[in-house]
Amino acid sequence: MLQKKKNAVLVDGVILNGPIMDSKAGEKFVEEACKIIMEEVIRKADDVTEKVCEWRAPEALKQILDLEMRDTGESHQKLLQLCRDVIQYSVKTSHPRFFNQLYAGIDYSSLVARFITEALNPSVYTYEVSPVFLLVEEAVIKKMIEFIGWEEGDGIFNPGGSVSNMYAMNLARYKFCPEIKEKGLSGLPRLVLFTSEECHYSMKKAASFLGIGTENVYFIKTDERMAANMVVKCGRLRNENQCIKRDVKYSGSAPFLVCATAGTTVLGAFDPLDKIADICEKHGLWLHVDGLLKKCYSAKAAYLFQQDKFYDVSYDTGDKSIQCSRRPDAFKFWLMWKALGTTGLEERVNRALALARYLVEEIKKREGFQLILEPEYANVCFWYIPPSLRQMEDGPEFWQKLHQIAPIIKERMMKKGSMMLGYQPHQGKVNFFRQVVISPQVSREDMDFLLDEIELLAKDL
Amino acid sequence: MLQKKKNAVLVDGVILNGPIMDSKAGEKFVEEACKIIMEEVIRKADDVTEKVCEWRAPEALKQILDLEMRDTGESHQKLLQLCRDVIQYSVKTSHPRFFNQLYAGIDYSSLVARFITEALNPSVYTYEVSPVFLLVEEAVIKKMIEFIGWEEGDGIFNPGGSVSNMYAMNLARYKFCPEIKEKGLSGLPRLVLFTSEECHYSMKKAASFLGIGTENVYFIKTDERMAANMVVKCGRLRNENQCIKRDVKYSGSAPFLVCATAGTTVLGAFDPLDKIADICEKHGLWLHVDGLLKKCYSAKAAYLFQQDKFYDVSYDTGDKSIQCSRRPDAFKFWLMWKALGTTGLEERVNRALALARYLVEEIKKREGFQLILEPEYANVCFWYIPPSLRQMEDGPEFWQKLHQIAPIIKERMMKKGSMMLGYQPHQGKVNFFRQVVISPQVSREDMDFLLDEIELLAKDL
Repeated sequence: MLQKKKNAVLVDGVILNGPIMDSKAGEKFVEEACKIIMEEVIRKADDVTEKVCEWRAPEALKQILDLEMRDTGESHQKLLQLCRDVIQYSVKTSHPRFFNQLYAGIDYSSLVARFITEALNPSVYTYEVSPVFLLVEEAVIKKMIEFIGWEEGDGIFNPGGSVSNMYAMNLARYKFCPEIKEKGLSGLPRLVLFTSEECHYSMKKAASFLGIGTENVYFIKTDERMAANMVVKCGRLRNENQCIKRDVKYSGSAPFLVCATAGTTVLGAFDPLDKIADICEKHGLWLHVDGLLKKCYSAKAAYLFQQDKFYDVSYDTGDKSIQCSRRPDAFKFWLMWKALGTTGLEERVNRALALARYLVEEIKKREGFQLILEPEYANVCFWYIPPSLRQMEDGPEFWQKLHQIAPIIKERMMKKGSMMLGYQPHQGKVNFFRQVVISPQVSREDMDFLLDEIELLAKDL
Repeated sequence: MLQKKKNAVLVDGVILNGPIMDSKAGEKFVEEACKIIMEEVIRKADDVTEKVCEWRAPEALKQILDLEMRDTGESHQKLLQLCRDVIQYSVKTSHPRFFNQLYAGIDYSSLVARFITEALNPSVYTYEVSPVFLLVEEAVIKKMIEFIGWEEGDGIFNPGGSVSNMYAMNLARYKFCPEIKEKGLSGLPRLVLFTSEECHYSMKKAASFLGIGTENVYFIKTDERMAANMVVKCGRLRNENQCIKRDVKYSGSAPFLVCATAGTTVLGAFDPLDKIADICEKHGLWLHVDGLLKKCYSAKAAYLFQQDKFYDVSYDTGDKSIQCSRRPDAFKFWLMWKALGTTGLEERVNRALALARYLVEEIKKREGFQLILEPEYANVCFWYIPPSLRQMEDGPEFWQKLHQIAPIIKERMMKKGSMMLGYQPHQGKVNFFRQVVISPQVSREDMDFLLDEIELLAKDL
C-alpha cells in the first residue's frame, strides 16, 4: 500500500508531498474578487443612481446563471464572471433605497469585522481556539448589561431573533421545572405561555419546536389601534392569568412565561414592560422581552430579565449555546461600537427616529397617502390611495380595490429597480406599505423620493 | 417640531439632509483593512514558518487588546491597529499545522463567496430579496440528493451540525405524531430515541431542548474497540427495540427515532447504516444519519432519509427553517464545487484519507507512538509514550502518568505556536491525541512534522 519513490510518497496512487493547491493563484483570485466586490458592491452602496435590484423571474434567472456543478472545475476567469453575475442579480441591501426588510445599509467597520471573521474562520467555543473573540463577546455583553442598568446578567450572541426567542422559552421552562431537561414534558402539566397577538411569529415556532405546542401559546389581544394599549393589555394579561391560575387546579395547565415585545415587527409597537413586569413578579412568571436594544443596534443578543443567576445552574451540558460551532457575531458589533462610540450609535438611532417623524409629517401633507397609525418607533405604516380610488365611497369594494394597489406598485418598483419597500395586510387592514428607517445612509431626500416614486409608479391607477 | 431652513430639514435638532456617513473615507478604510487581511491572513495561510497561535493568557490578552467601548468613536488608524491586533492574537485556523478541530485550511473560492455574502448581506427567506442565493441553494441541494442516489428529497443549509440534529429530531417527532406541533408533548407517551454512545453530544442537547428529555435518549453500546461493531450494535439495537416495544405496553413509552452516525467526532467510526435501516424499516422507526456527506465536504446540510415526502405536509408555519433570517451558506459550497468540480472534491477526500493512512504507518514505525485503533476514516487517534514511561509496567500508575502527558505537550506546542492538535480522554482511555486530516494545504511533510514535533516537545518527559 505504501510506496516511497525518492522523495515522493504515494499512498494508493495519491502523491502526498507538498500542497495540492496553487496558493499564489488562489491569492491572486481572492485579490481580483475583492476588487470586484469593492467596485460593484461597496463603492455603489451609496449611489442612488444604481438599481436596488435587477429583477428576473426564477426561470429567466436560471437561464442567465450557470448554476450547474460539473465534474471538472472552472477557471478563475469563469469564476470571477460568476461572481459578477451573482452580484448583478442580487438585491443591493446596502442601497439607500432598500427599505424592504428590517436590515439595510452598510456599516464599514462592521463589514471589515465580518471580512476578518471570514478570513480567520474561527468558532467561538473555547478560549484555546478563539481567545480574542471570546474576550470581545464578554466585553460586549458586559457593556450591554451595564447599558441597560442591570447589576448582573449573562448572554450570548446567536444566529438571530427567532433562535433568541427559543432560548428564552427554554430558560423559562428550565426555571419553572429543571427536571424537564432530563425527564422531558411527557407526563407534566400542560405548560402555557402568554404573548401579544402582535408578537414575532417565531414564538409559535419556538413553542412547536420545544414540544410545548402552538395551542399553548395564549395570545393577548391588543387594542383597536393594533398598538400596545397599556391598560387593555395589562388588564387582559391579569385576567387571563387569573383564569389560568384557576385552570391549573382543574385541568392541570401551568403558566410559566410571558413574552413581551419591545418594537413589534410590522408596527413597531411597544408592550408596557413595567406593568407586565409587575404582574409577572406578582405571579412568579418568567418575563422575556423580545427586541430590547436589539433593533436599536442591529445586534442580536439573547436578552432576558434576570430574576436570579440562572447560569449558576448550568442549564444544559455546561455550555450556553445550542450550537457547537458558533460565529463571533459580537465582533462586528464591537468594531462598530468602537468606530462610532456610544454617542455615534445614539445619533444613528435619533436620526432614524427623526427621519421617521419627517416621513410621517410628509405623508400627512400629501394627497392620497394615509397613515395607518402614529408610529411609536421607526416603523411608518401607510396606504397609498391612487387617483381613481380617492372619490370612492368607503365600503367593501373600496377596501378590496385598495388591497390590490400595494402589490401593483411593488411589482412596478421591482421591475424598475428604483427601490424596494415591503407591504402586508395586517390584523384586518388591507395591504399597506411599511417603511422602517434603519440605514445610516438614508437621508431626507430618500424619504421624499419614496413618496414621489410611489406617486409616479401609481399615477395611472 | 418640524422646521425648514432653506434646504436643511431639522427634526428635533437633527439635520436630515444628506447622508451622515463619509462614504469615501469608509471605502478607503475597507480597502486598507482588506490589504491587512490579505497580508496578515491570506498570504500567510500556507506559510509554515508562521506561528499557528500567539498564545496569551486571558488577563494578559485583555491588557494587550483595547476592548473598551467608549462614548466617542476611534479613528480609522486606531481601528486598523485593532484589526491587526485581533488578527495577531487569533488562532490561524487556516495554517497547515492547525489540527485542533474538525475544520481547517483555506479554500480560496469559498472565502471569496463568503466575502461576497458579507458585502451583499442577504437573508435567504424570499425570492424577492434573495433571488440568486435561493436558486443556488436549490441547485446545491438537488445536486447533493442526486449524488447520494435518492430520487427525491429536500433540505436546507443551516448554522451547523447540532442544529441539523435538532431538525432531524423535530421532523421524526412530527412524522410520529403530527399533533405534537399544536398540542405539545404534555399528556403523550414518553417518546424515546436510540443512538450510539459515540454519537455527537448535540443529541442530548437536542432531546433536552425539544422537551423530549435527556433520559429518553437510549444509548446503544459500541464494541470494545469503541468503533462501530456491526453485529454487536445491530444486535443491541434489535434487543433494545424489542424491549421498548414491550415497554410501550406497560409504561407507555414510544420509540420514534434512531440516530445513526456516519463518522463519529473523536474516532471517525461509522455505524452500520444498511443494517440499522433494515431494523428501522421493520419497526417503522425514523432513521436519521448524522454526518453523511457533511464531513467530506465541510458543508452543513440537514440530511434525512426520506421515507415519504415530509415537506408535502409543511411541518411548521410553512417555511422550512426555525430561523427567520438565514445566511446563504449554500453559496460558499456552490462556488467551491464550481471551482474544484466533483472530481476535485473527490481528490481532496482521497488525499485526506491517504494522508491519514500515511500517518498511521509512520506511527507504527516510530518508537513511543501507539495507535488507539485502525482508523475507518480520516481520524487518527494515538498516544505518545515519552522516554521515561517506555520501560514502565502496564498498570494504574502507567496510565495515570500517560494521562498527564498530552496536556503537557499541548501546553508546550501552544506556547511555542508551532502547531495545534487536540487531545481528550475517551471511553475509559486516558488522554490521547486526535489528528483529523481536513485541510487541502496539508501534505506529507506536515504529517512528518507533527510526529517530529511531538517527539521534540516531549523529549525530556
